[in-house]
Amino acid sequence: MPACPLCDTPGGTILWQDDFCRVVLADEPDYPGFLRVILVAHVKEMSDLAPADRERLLQAVLASEAALREVVAPDKINLASLGNLVPHLHWHVIPRFADDPHFPNPVWGARQRDTPRTAPPDLAARLAAALRQRLGPARETE
Amino acid sequence: MPACPLCDTPGGTILWQDDFCRVVLADEPDYPGFLRVILVAHVKEMSDLAPADRERLLQAVLASEAALREVVAPDKINLASLGNLVPHLHWHVIPRFADDPHFPNPVWGARQRDTPRTAPPDLAARLAAALRQRLGPARETE
Repeated sequence: MPACPLCDTPGGTILWQDDFCRVVLADEPDYPGFLRVILVAHVKEMSDLAPADRERLLQAVLASEAALREVVAPDKINLASLGNLVPHLHWHVIPRFADDPHFPNPVWGARQRDTPRTAPPDLAARLAAALRQRLGPARETE
Repeated sequence: MPACPLCDTPGGTILWQDDFCRVVLADEPDYPGFLRVILVAHVKEMSDLAPADRERLLQAVLASEAALREVVAPDKINLASLGNLVPHLHWHVIPRFADDPHFPNPVWGARQRDTPRTAPPDLAARLAAALRQRLGPARETE
């Protein structure tokens, strides 16, 4: 099996984790609050998971959506599980704003404008608290 | 409320439907088998749905993924709920192939190549059968 960046590295700043998955704040300067929900196990497709595990992963995705709506109040949430480059299950949970750099395109589409957006300094802490409120206490980072 | 294309039109060839959602074959010539799962109700975000309804919609999304894996055996499945242009819950369920026009980019990203891909003539019927097998009998189209 080739090296997998999501097996080998956190993939962002860990905001919440348990033994099953982690929620990380992605390093995406255009999109403060861009979250990724990453399965711990190296599995390719949702339909490769047992039903209970699909539900558990989607619960973390929807908790991430709800945390973003509470903390950054975006105009829209975008959810996606692609994995063409990294076939290890991970979900993008992206807060979108009508004036963001790609709106209304997907963030992978044609750029529409430059819109500097500054993350509030306590963004990670506020998202982590909103996640704990929905998902329970996080396992300590090693 | 402005006119909504997913309230007013099927959005594709209906392969399966009940009173809650429909699965349509999208008119995307580059991507035979591109499915969309469209909620009947005009609702914007997954977290606006009651938990049982979220689960029900995701069950249709994952049944669509499984049907595509059975019928077209793609190299990867892409799942996405964006809704920036049409804020009415719908999921893209996209069969991806390593030689398709955008791979490994998202289908909304930069085109990589032209790859004519012909849909088998019975694609819609085979997908509809695979969906019925997973979701039960479909309601008759009006």
